Amino acid sequence: VFCVPQESVAGADRIGVRIGDHVLDLAYLVGQGLVDGPFAVGSLNDFMALGPDHWSAVRSRLTDLLCDPGARTEVEPGLYELEQVVLKLPFEVADYVDFYSSLEHATNLGRLLRPGGEPLLPNWRHLPVGYHGRAGTVVPTGTPVTRPCGQLRHKQQTLVHGPTTRLDIELEVAVVIGVPSELGERVPIEEAPDHVFGVVLVNDWSARDIQAWEYQPLGPFLGKSFATSVAAWVTPLAALEDARVEGPVQDPVPLDYLRGGRSWGLALDLSLGLCPAEGGDEQQISSTSFAGMYWQFPQQIAHLTTNGASLRTGDLLASGTVSGPERGSEGSLMELTWGGAEPIDVAGHERSFLEDGDEVVLRGSAVVDTGVVITLGEVRGQVRAANADTVEVRRHEI
Amino acid sequence: VFCVPQESVAGADRIGVRIGDHVLDLAYLVGQGLVDGPFAVGSLNDFMALGPDHWSAVRSRLTDLLCDPGARTEVEPGLYELEQVVLKLPFEVADYVDFYSSLEHATNLGRLLRPGGEPLLPNWRHLPVGYHGRAGTVVPTGTPVTRPCGQLRHKQQTLVHGPTTRLDIELEVAVVIGVPSELGERVPIEEAPDHVFGVVLVNDWSARDIQAWEYQPLGPFLGKSFATSVAAWVTPLAALEDARVEGPVQDPVPLDYLRGGRSWGLALDLSLGLCPAEGGDEQQISSTSFAGMYWQFPQQIAHLTTNGASLRTGDLLASGTVSGPERGSEGSLMELTWGGAEPIDVAGHERSFLEDGDEVVLRGSAVVDTGVVITLGEVRGQVRAANADTVEVRRHEI
Repeated sequence: VFCVPQESVAGADRIGVRIGDHVLDLAYLVGQGLVDGPFAVGSLNDFMALGPDHWSAVRSRLTDLLCDPGARTEVEPGLYELEQVVLKLPFEVADYVDFYSSLEHATNLGRLLRPGGEPLLPNWRHLPVGYHGRAGTVVPTGTPVTRPCGQLRHKQQTLVHGPTTRLDIELEVAVVIGVPSELGERVPIEEAPDHVFGVVLVNDWSARDIQAWEYQPLGPFLGKSFATSVAAWVTPLAALEDARVEGPVQDPVPLDYLRGGRSWGLALDLSLGLCPAEGGDEQQISSTSFAGMYWQFPQQIAHLTTNGASLRTGDLLASGTVSGPERGSEGSLMELTWGGAEPIDVAGHERSFLEDGDEVVLRGSAVVDTGVVITLGEVRGQVRAANADTVEVRRHEI
Repeated sequence: VFCVPQESVAGADRIGVRIGDHVLDLAYLVGQGLVDGPFAVGSLNDFMALGPDHWSAVRSRLTDLLCDPGARTEVEPGLYELEQVVLKLPFEVADYVDFYSSLEHATNLGRLLRPGGEPLLPNWRHLPVGYHGRAGTVVPTGTPVTRPCGQLRHKQQTLVHGPTTRLDIELEVAVVIGVPSELGERVPIEEAPDHVFGVVLVNDWSARDIQAWEYQPLGPFLGKSFATSVAAWVTPLAALEDARVEGPVQDPVPLDYLRGGRSWGLALDLSLGLCPAEGGDEQQISSTSFAGMYWQFPQQIAHLTTNGASLRTGDLLASGTVSGPERGSEGSLMELTWGGAEPIDVAGHERSFLEDGDEVVLRGSAVVDTGVVITLGEVRGQVRAANADTVEVRRHEI
């Protein structure tokens, strides 16, 4: 979804397709009678609700138009350069669910938070653990993120209300629901992919100190709810067909309703870049793969709906942090710096957690058999200082 | 929000005001030029977004109309009997947040779930603990609730996927946000009430066995997400002005950003009724008061936004289960039957948790100084048997 601010028609929001460094205006193509669909609107939701047959009809129609030299003069007036347009949130988020599906991430967090104990809790291998996040604070790439304030416990003795000192990144991949489901009915695992319109990169910003103090017993709340950044572009699931891989073997074999859907691993190469506030070039601080995730989206959807919960168009189901088994393949600073104990070097500057002015960039792509590279929309976000009027620090015996 | 199915104009959704056993059609009054506002629509959201000045202008205009005998002939065609209309969800739920604000409930749950330990976790008295629920499964009163399936652990040794055997009620009171706030800005505690349009009763249905197995470490998920029932009527906060009381003293005194708002206790008398599936009259199984809640909504709003999270019109902020200090004043069967160990008698039938066919009714009212009784919209829901095709039980060593 984009608008063109300098346009005479007052920059109305409409839907576009990204083609390299250009955006093809689908609302323009509808106006010309070249394509049919709800594209002269400010969100993908109406189109996403139409279902796989409509999605593929539009995809093949666009492919035909773009491959036909004769259609060039008709299509070209609908092309904008990427710099001309303002990108918006691509869809209205219905519910935002965040899973916890990387074995390596869950193991790392278990080791960091419960040292000496069994890193994985007993339920982890039996069900895709997840929780609901705040849909209202999902923002598109480029939105600055204000350092959140909250309650922080220092050394188990002092309670402070002030800006987080452990602001973190979480590199995630989410599916976006297109086709809704009925309340009271489960979605069988084999039907789950038909509900998914596409895939987006997600940065689930986290304040580790706020989270650590608040999260018992009802889970993360203010430590996560201040902002969640998503890409401006949703990559249709159909475009990733050639990136599908078999997921890792699950041991133990899960219950029947979670069996299947294992061919929906996606071989996405992911990376985290950081531009330090001090200046200097962006540096890659993590490089990982989405292919090895323990729980996959068909299982997540089957689980989410097995209690009869309905899906809505615009539901955002995120994977949880994607971490690989090697050092340097973790999707959060919490893991990359081992809870801050092992700071990393970023272009000559030491980092444990994010500093004001740091900019983070999440990238993802798939190299498919044909050699074609499918690039996911990037997710960019810069940290702003906490608001002066919210910095209210006092101490409190606990 | 209601429609009239037998109407010639095809029963369009519109907004009404409840007056005893009648509904006054505000869309009709707009059409007659008697009232101004966005009432010929299917949700209260547009009106709720307008803010306190608009809300009170409409309230006093309606009071004038209803007290003016001369206006009677103009108003009467807009009156329907309650039985003539179909009630709908009164507003579009943006985010659904559930707090945990009753000291008695949190203490009871702590005793039941962590016997022998300290019932309250260390953070409980320092911040209003809460989490995000599933907005997409909030349903209006009268919607049947299908018994949810999920993973249940039996005797720590066997894993089953099947219908919950510990289906429960949670009696709650929620505020509904009217006026949104900006991302990145906190709402100071003294401004919080200006964001609140009104109050609704909530039944946060819970499957205790699903919840017990899934909730570590990220909080409740499928044990709560299958359905949350709300009243069809939102009581404007302004109508409860005379029901305000000072909340209980908080010890320790909370941090600065949570100080204040203590005069927003609401003296609401609440009750839980149960009509057992076997037949017989409805029996009251709990009677409690909302006046003594430890954390109050201005504190909840100040806390929710202190990290910069924005409020949206339609945010539903529920109190958590309302329980009093005496036996019989608890807002859940989990507490009333002490985890099922002490079944209660309901019209001659034993109950630990809900059976298929049971109907639950939540009621609330305030008796204000003038002797006037303000009745909140009731919340009714009947339990349906689990869907046959989702009853897939197998055993699994864990």
